[in-house]
Amino acid sequence: MMVLMNREATEEMIQAVIERLRSSGRDVKRHESRLRTCLEAAVQGDELNEKEFLSMDGVVDVIKQSSPFKLVACKAGQEKTIVDVDGVRIGGEEVIIMAGPCSVESKEQIDHLAKMVAANGAKLLRGGAFKPRTSPYSFQGLGEKGLRILRDAADAHGLKVISELMSIGQIEMLQEYAHIIQIGTRNMANYDLLKSLAKIKTPVLLKRGMGATISEWLLAAEYLLAGGNPNVILCERGIRTFDSAKDMILDLSAIPIVGRMSHLPIIADPSHGTGFRQYVTPMSRAAIAAGADGLLVEVHHQPEKALSDGPQALLLDQFTNMMSQCRKIAEAIGRFIAEPNEKE
Amino acid sequence: MMVLMNREATEEMIQAVIERLRSSGRDVKRHESRLRTCLEAAVQGDELNEKEFLSMDGVVDVIKQSSPFKLVACKAGQEKTIVDVDGVRIGGEEVIIMAGPCSVESKEQIDHLAKMVAANGAKLLRGGAFKPRTSPYSFQGLGEKGLRILRDAADAHGLKVISELMSIGQIEMLQEYAHIIQIGTRNMANYDLLKSLAKIKTPVLLKRGMGATISEWLLAAEYLLAGGNPNVILCERGIRTFDSAKDMILDLSAIPIVGRMSHLPIIADPSHGTGFRQYVTPMSRAAIAAGADGLLVEVHHQPEKALSDGPQALLLDQFTNMMSQCRKIAEAIGRFIAEPNEKE
Amino acid sequence: MMVLMNREATEEMIQAVIERLRSSGRDVKRHESRLRTCLEAAVQGDELNEKEFLSMDGVVDVIKQSSPFKLVACKAGQEKTIVDVDGVRIGGEEVIIMAGPCSVESKEQIDHLAKMVAANGAKLLRGGAFKPRTSPYSFQGLGEKGLRILRDAADAHGLKVISELMSIGQIEMLQEYAHIIQIGTRNMANYDLLKSLAKIKTPVLLKRGMGATISEWLLAAEYLLAGGNPNVILCERGIRTFDSAKDMILDLSAIPIVGRMSHLPIIADPSHGTGFRQYVTPMSRAAIAAGADGLLVEVHHQPEKALSDGPQALLLDQFTNMMSQCRKIAEAIGRFIAEPNEKE
Amino acid sequence: MMVLMNREATEEMIQAVIERLRSSGRDVKRHESRLRTCLEAAVQGDELNEKEFLSMDGVVDVIKQSSPFKLVACKAGQEKTIVDVDGVRIGGEEVIIMAGPCSVESKEQIDHLAKMVAANGAKLLRGGAFKPRTSPYSFQGLGEKGLRILRDAADAHGLKVISELMSIGQIEMLQEYAHIIQIGTRNMANYDLLKSLAKIKTPVLLKRGMGATISEWLLAAEYLLAGGNPNVILCERGIRTFDSAKDMILDLSAIPIVGRMSHLPIIADPSHGTGFRQYVTPMSRAAIAAGADGLLVEVHHQPEKALSDGPQALLLDQFTNMMSQCRKIAEAIGRFIAEPNEKE
Repeated sequence: MMVLMNREATEEMIQAVIERLRSSGRDVKRHESRLRTCLEAAVQGDELNEKEFLSMDGVVDVIKQSSPFKLVACKAGQEKTIVDVDGVRIGGEEVIIMAGPCSVESKEQIDHLAKMVAANGAKLLRGGAFKPRTSPYSFQGLGEKGLRILRDAADAHGLKVISELMSIGQIEMLQEYAHIIQIGTRNMANYDLLKSLAKIKTPVLLKRGMGATISEWLLAAEYLLAGGNPNVILCERGIRTFDSAKDMILDLSAIPIVGRMSHLPIIADPSHGTGFRQYVTPMSRAAIAAGADGLLVEVHHQPEKALSDGPQALLLDQFTNMMSQCRKIAEAIGRFIAEPNEKE
Repeated sequence: MMVLMNREATEEMIQAVIERLRSSGRDVKRHESRLRTCLEAAVQGDELNEKEFLSMDGVVDVIKQSSPFKLVACKAGQEKTIVDVDGVRIGGEEVIIMAGPCSVESKEQIDHLAKMVAANGAKLLRGGAFKPRTSPYSFQGLGEKGLRILRDAADAHGLKVISELMSIGQIEMLQEYAHIIQIGTRNMANYDLLKSLAKIKTPVLLKRGMGATISEWLLAAEYLLAGGNPNVILCERGIRTFDSAKDMILDLSAIPIVGRMSHLPIIADPSHGTGFRQYVTPMSRAAIAAGADGLLVEVHHQPEKALSDGPQALLLDQFTNMMSQCRKIAEAIGRFIAEPNEKE
Repeated sequence: MMVLMNREATEEMIQAVIERLRSSGRDVKRHESRLRTCLEAAVQGDELNEKEFLSMDGVVDVIKQSSPFKLVACKAGQEKTIVDVDGVRIGGEEVIIMAGPCSVESKEQIDHLAKMVAANGAKLLRGGAFKPRTSPYSFQGLGEKGLRILRDAADAHGLKVISELMSIGQIEMLQEYAHIIQIGTRNMANYDLLKSLAKIKTPVLLKRGMGATISEWLLAAEYLLAGGNPNVILCERGIRTFDSAKDMILDLSAIPIVGRMSHLPIIADPSHGTGFRQYVTPMSRAAIAAGADGLLVEVHHQPEKALSDGPQALLLDQFTNMMSQCRKIAEAIGRFIAEPNEKE
Repeated sequence: MMVLMNREATEEMIQAVIERLRSSGRDVKRHESRLRTCLEAAVQGDELNEKEFLSMDGVVDVIKQSSPFKLVACKAGQEKTIVDVDGVRIGGEEVIIMAGPCSVESKEQIDHLAKMVAANGAKLLRGGAFKPRTSPYSFQGLGEKGLRILRDAADAHGLKVISELMSIGQIEMLQEYAHIIQIGTRNMANYDLLKSLAKIKTPVLLKRGMGATISEWLLAAEYLLAGGNPNVILCERGIRTFDSAKDMILDLSAIPIVGRMSHLPIIADPSHGTGFRQYVTPMSRAAIAAGADGLLVEVHHQPEKALSDGPQALLLDQFTNMMSQCRKIAEAIGRFIAEPNEKE
C-alpha cells in the first residue's frame, strides 16, 4: 500500500499516517518528491482499510499494491480452470449447454424436455425446485419431489442436473440430486450461504447479483475458493439498467473482462438476461462469440402454461434452431458444441 | 386483469386468451371497440402471470387490476403503522435516531459511544456483531460477545439495541440481545431468511437492496407481513448509480414514494448512503425534511482506527452538531427529536 | 387512447375525462365492466398527453394505442432499410466495417492507416476533425484541415469517409468531405441540430446517448426521418452502468431489440463501448453475432502517442486479426465481410 | 502526474515511460522502492493523457496531481460565488425560488401565474418558449412570442426571467428577454453551444445531463468559465436510475458534493427530478435542507390542460403551501426565503 500525501501536509500529519501504517506490523518506507510525500508499506490485501487513510489529514490518494482477489485471480502462467462435472468439462474447448424449464412443474414436462434437450446436444438439464420469487404469493417450487423428477429424467437421457439452492438447510438435499448447485442472483452476496457451500466439493454455479459489480461478484467467488471449494463456474445473467423497456441488460463485456481477471469458467444466461424469447437466440450467439464457456437457457414445450417466466422460454423448435446457430458460432472461434444426438 | 388485443387479432387468438383467463376459474367479459378487443376477468394478484399473456398472439397490453402489495400497501383510510420497539415508537411524530459504530470492536468503544449517543437524544444503539463483508478476508465481527457488549451498554444508558442478522441460525441469538433485527442490503431478497423472520414478532429493519426497485423492496416486506410479523421498518440506504465518484446514491425520493404506497415506517441511513462523513449531516437534514421517520447513523470516537467503514462515521462533535441541526429540521415540519439528555 | 377508471370513480370524474378526451375532436366510446369504466378515443400519438390523464381523479391507467414511432417503426411487411453510401450498402447482407483513428492528427498518420484499413476489407475511413471533449482543455481537433486529409486518403484507397459534426454551422463543410455525418453520443438529443440535418440527404450515423433509452434514441432518429432525411444508421456505443470498473457497458441487446422495433440499420462501436483495446475483438465478434450491420472501430499505428483515446484503439496487427475473426462470425450467420484487398 | 510501474517492469519499459513523460517538456523524477518504480513529472491537467500511460507495458497506475477543474474548483480560502441576476443574488444567504409553467402557452396563463408566483415570494419567473421535446410531434413552444409574454409579465410583477435556449442562433434573442439563460439536460454536453455562451455575460443555469457524472457536469461548467462567462448556476434535475417506477432520481447528494468541489451556486429542480407533483413538496424541503441555493419549480393553474409536463406541476394552493414549508426549512438552517408579498 502506498499513501500519497500532498505538499501542504505537515510533519505531524505524515507521522500520523506512518504510525497507522506501522500498526500492520510492517516497515514503512518514505519517498519525498517536490510534490508529494509517498509512504509505502508491504501491507497485504485487507489488513488495512484504504478508505481510512483517505480520511486522514493531508492524504490525497492510496495505492493498493495487491489485489483483493487472491484465489480467483489469474496468476502469471496459470491455466484456465476446467470444472469437471461428473465427466462434463466446463471451461475447455467445448461450449457446454445447460437447458430446461424455469421451474420443475411435473414429471411429464421434465421427461419431455429432457429427451429433447439431450437430443440437441445439451449436457445438463436445468430446472428449479426451490424458486426465489419476488412476490410471496408466486409459485414457490415443488421442493424435493421436483429434484427427484429432474434427476430421474436426467439419468434416463445421459444428462447432468443443475438446480438452485436457496438456504443452508437445503445443501444436503441438493447434493444428493444435483451435479451443479446454482446460487441465484439474489443470494450472490449471502455470505453465510457461500461459506457453507465452500465446505463441500459439489460444483457451484454463481450467478452475478443484478446490482453487483464484477469485483463484488469475483469476491463472492473468493468466499467459495477461500473456504475450500475450487469448483466454481460464474454466470452472467443481466444487470440493472436505466432503460425500463428491458428487464435487465445482459452484460456480455463481463465475459472478456472476467476472462482476463480470473481463471474461472464463465457462462451466460440469455433467458433471464433478456426476459423475452425473441432475443434469446441472437444473444446466445453473441455470448459464445464473446467467449462464454457455456449457456444456461430456458426452454419449455408449453411456455404459455409455465408457472414462472414463460415469455422468456424458447419453444422446442426455436431451441433446436438456436443450438444449430450457436454450433456454427462456436466453430467460427475454434470451439465446439456437441452434435445433436440422433438416438434421442 | 384486462387483456387488450389488437384489431388484427383473429377470433382464434381471442379464444385462446379467453380460455387461458378462464383457467383461473373466473368469468371472462369481452368488450369490443373499433380498435381493440378487451378481455376482462376478476383475477387476483398472482393467480395468472401478466407476462404470459403478453407472449400470446394478438395481445398488445395487460392491465392488472390488483396490486401485488396486499399487506404492505395503504388501504383507504388506513393509518400509518407505528412500530413499538419496547416503548420507542417508530413512525409517529417523533423522529427516532439510531446511532453507533459500524462494528462492535470492544467494550470500551461501545461504552464510550453509548453514553455519548444517549446524551444527544438518540434512542437506539447500533453496532454490528456479524458483518457481511464483500471480501472474505475483511473483519467479520465479534459474534455473540459483541452482542452482549452492545446490550449491556444500551441497558446502562436507557437505549434499545439494533443489530444485523445474517443467517437463519442466528435468529434466536439476535432475539435475545436486540430489540430490532436488521436485514442488510445483501439479504433483502434472501427469501428463506425473510420467511423465518416472519414467524417471530421482533421488529425487523429491512434495508433496501442496493440494486432493488422500490416494488421489489416492498414485496420483500410483504414476505414478512404475509408470514405473520407486522413489525417492519423500511430503511433506504443508497442504491447503485453510474457516477463512480460515489459509492451509492441515497434515494431520498423513496421516502415520499413509500409514504404514499405503504403504511410502514421508513428511515434513512445517510452513512452507507453517502460513504463519506462530510456528506452525512446535510443528507441527514434532507432525509428528515423529506419525511423520514428516523435515521440510522454511524458514529465513532476514533474512526481512523475503525475496523470497518471508518471514513463514513461521524466524529463525536460532528454527531452532536448533526443532532442539533436535525432537531431544528424536525421542528420545521411539525415533528420532533428527543432533547439532549443533560444527565448523561 | 384508452383511459381506465376505477370503480370508485364518480360520474363527475368520468365526465371530466370524457370532456378532456373530446377536446381532441374525436368521439369517445364508453365501456362499462364490473371493475372499470373504460373510455376510448381514436387519438393520434401526441395529440393528448398520457400523463395528464394519469393525474385526473379516478383514473388508474392509460393505454396508448399508437406508437410514438411513426417513421422509424417497422410497418407490417416493410423491408429493412438499406442506406446507400455512395455505393456502399449498409443494412444488407454485407457487414460493413468503418475503421480509423479517434482523431485526425496528421497526413502521415491518416495515409498510413487508410492504406491498412482498406487492405483489410474495411469500407469506410473514420476520423474526427471536430472533437467533443469532456474537458475544455483537451485536444479539440484539426477542423477543416483534418477533413481534407481524411478525404484525400480515403479517395486514394477507395474508401468512403465518416466524420463527426458538432454544430449546425459545420453542416456544409461536413457535406463536402464526408459520406456519412456522425452525430455523437452527446448530441443525440440536440434537437435543433437534428432538425437541420433532416433537411439534407447525406447519410447520418446517430449514436445512442450514453444515458438514453432505446425509445429516446429511436425518437431522435424520428426527428431526422420526419424532417426529410431517410438515410439514418443507428450506432450503439455503450451506455452508463453502475460498475465503475468500466467506462460504459456496450448494450448488445439493443441490436436485436432495435431490429424488431425499426427498419433502420444498426451498427456497434466496440471501441467507445469498452474503452480498452483488449475487449474490442471479442465484443466485435459478439456484435456481429447479435446481428449488427457493421462496426465502427478505432485503430492506430501508435496508440501510445494518440492525442485522444489511445488505450481503446487496436494496434495494426490486432485489427487484421479482428477482421479475420469477424469474417468467420459473419459467415457463421449467413452474412459476409469484404475480403482483404491484396493489392493494398 | 505520477506513473507507478510494477516490480516486473524491465528497464526498457521504464525508459519508455520516462521518454513519454519528457515529451511534455518537464523533468522526470524517479523513485525506487521494493515494490514499485514511481516516475513523476510536474505535468499540468491534460497535457498528457492518463489512459495512454495505463496502456504501456509495466504500468500499474497513474496518479494525476492536478484536478481537471481549474476554474470551477474551490481554491483554498476562496469564497462561494454569488451570481448577481439584475439584483437577485444567487448563492448567498437567501434561497431563491424560480417558478412558473413548463411551457409558455398564452398571455392569460403567464399573467395569472406571474402574479401568483410573485405573491408567494419567488424571485424569478420560469417558462419555456423553445422546448426540447423527446418526440418531434410534441408541442415545440411559442418561440419569441412566448419570450415576450414572459418578460412582460415578469416586469409587471417585479420578477426576473429564466428561459431555456436550444441553439446558438437563439442566443441574441434570449439575451433580450431573459435574465438567466437555461441550458437543459439534453444540451449539457453540447460543447459548441457552451463555447458560444461563454462569450457573453448573461448568467447561465446549467442543468446536469440525465446521464452525466458530477465530474462531467463540472467540466461542462468549466467550458463556460474558461471561455469568459463567470456567471454560472448549476442545477440538479434528476439522473437515470434502474427503478422504472420513477422517471428519474433527484440526486440530492450532488448538492453537498458540488458544494465541496466547487464555488458555484447550485439549485434543484424537484419537478423534473420527481415527475409527479405529489413528490415535489417533500423533495423541495429536502433540497433546501441539503443546502441548495434555490429551487426551479413548475406550477400551473390548470395542469390537466398543460401542453407539456402537466402531472409534475404544482397546483396554486400546493405552491403556496410548499413555499411556506420551505421557508421554515430555510430558517432551520440559518437561511431565508423572501416573505409572501401581500400587495400582489
